[in-house]
Amino acid sequence: MSLQVKAVTQQFHGQTILDKLDLTFEPHTIYGLLGRNGAGKSTLLNIISNRIFASDGTVTLDDETLVDNDATLGRLYLMSEVNLYNERTKLNKLLTTTAQFYGDFDQAYAVKLAGQFDLDLNARFGKLSTGYRTIFKLIVALCVPADYIFLDEPVLGLDANHRELFYQALIDTYTERPRTFVISTHLIEEIANLLENVVILDQHKIVVSGGVPDVLAKAYTITGPETDVQQYTESLNVIGTDHLGGITAHYVYGDLPDDRPIPDTVQVEHLDLQKLFVNLTNATEVAHAN
Amino acid sequence: MSLQVKAVTQQFHGQTILDKLDLTFEPHTIYGLLGRNGAGKSTLLNIISNRIFASDGTVTLDDETLVDNDATLGRLYLMSEVNLYNERTKLNKLLTTTAQFYGDFDQAYAVKLAGQFDLDLNARFGKLSTGYRTIFKLIVALCVPADYIFLDEPVLGLDANHRELFYQALIDTYTERPRTFVISTHLIEEIANLLENVVILDQHKIVVSGGVPDVLAKAYTITGPETDVQQYTESLNVIGTDHLGGITAHYVYGDLPDDRPIPDTVQVEHLDLQKLFVNLTNATEVAHAN
Repeated sequence: MSLQVKAVTQQFHGQTILDKLDLTFEPHTIYGLLGRNGAGKSTLLNIISNRIFASDGTVTLDDETLVDNDATLGRLYLMSEVNLYNERTKLNKLLTTTAQFYGDFDQAYAVKLAGQFDLDLNARFGKLSTGYRTIFKLIVALCVPADYIFLDEPVLGLDANHRELFYQALIDTYTERPRTFVISTHLIEEIANLLENVVILDQHKIVVSGGVPDVLAKAYTITGPETDVQQYTESLNVIGTDHLGGITAHYVYGDLPDDRPIPDTVQVEHLDLQKLFVNLTNATEVAHAN
Repeated sequence: MSLQVKAVTQQFHGQTILDKLDLTFEPHTIYGLLGRNGAGKSTLLNIISNRIFASDGTVTLDDETLVDNDATLGRLYLMSEVNLYNERTKLNKLLTTTAQFYGDFDQAYAVKLAGQFDLDLNARFGKLSTGYRTIFKLIVALCVPADYIFLDEPVLGLDANHRELFYQALIDTYTERPRTFVISTHLIEEIANLLENVVILDQHKIVVSGGVPDVLAKAYTITGPETDVQQYTESLNVIGTDHLGGITAHYVYGDLPDDRPIPDTVQVEHLDLQKLFVNLTNATEVAHAN
């Protein structure tokens, strides 16, 4: 029971967008899919949902292929920045059509969410602002009966109150009916507490994949006088440095050595997810397109 | 010398989107235009740049109308979420065309910024990710020779590092060549320090307009035991309340009375812009479309 991405590679005009990715998405888990602009997040989500084809590799759900397999594809839903809706159609009508397509679409919850977000279901899709287009697509994504829901930038254009409302709705619906959510976002601090697992893409490869507590347990800030910090972190995986006055900080990702005593002048603390992400993906070059 | 919005009203299908707005944008100033989803920010910016027509009211630049006035309109530039570019055209070509249209377009700075953002100018616009589309549009907006630059959600889809890079580029270009920027964004905390003036739209009206220091000087948090706080803030403009344990906080927007002593049990502090915004716009209903 899982969604498996095996050796997925995507090339475009001689450029590598995704480089032999291996990933497993387990049932009933909330994942964060993090990466800088152009890291290939949307490309990966589009390949998983069969909207584009990988140059190489396979995606399977419970060992069944997803390519041209409507029964299995129906268990997946991708909410993305692409607007699939006719601009002239009213939201009410779009909901009814979606409900007819998906047998178990939760229309009552959709109407309730529309009320919470002050979304008028009599409006036409084309008349919605950027933020309200996102809100409508989010509502649909939270109400489809799929087992795997992929949300590509779900808070694009949402104001702070509406972002909070979405995070709460996500927790509510997940508690009510556990399923897998894979969330790609650039507002990492806001969502960090919701994530059980995290996947970080950088330079077209996966650089981190695991449970959030396990990942953060290996992410450290080592602070103190420069020479002491350098001596302690020698040969460790230093992913970034900062200097403030006479104090130096080294950011380390990996286990600290048991046999090396921590000098009295040096402080060891844990990094949060946002800071880990920035340091892991900061120094490297970024591709431009996906 | 200023851009003046006078009694601008916008109605659509019997709904009021903007209700008799009066606003002045001075030269050489960075403005924040803040409002919840659906407050009418994009509608206002589209009216100012003559992309849509107001139901009523006028917009003038140095007393000249902007309606069908190419000379004056050329002094304005609106970067919005609408993609005006041909998907198949290469970015290089789009820059050259823009430079031909605007005599003083700063192509050297555009190329420099593209390098900083790792944007490949040989890519076609249609192949860019959501974030990189925003980046390209931002670069153009920072390089056109207009006197008034309107940025509607300029960091939509940008990762944290790229948002930082944009804020820095904005300061650099503004210092080099002062002009007016009007920035609409939902990431208020990040941009608050860059803003000189702020305009807050709520319920289709302007609820705050002024210099950021002046506005924040009138924004208070009054904390303490509930009865003491209530007594002190009676008849003041309380825009929100919070409770934590036995402590009550009232958020006040307006001058505090000189003749009312502050009880010893009560603490008075200032609010930041994000918190002021949330409290001013929280309780009210929000329209759905713009």
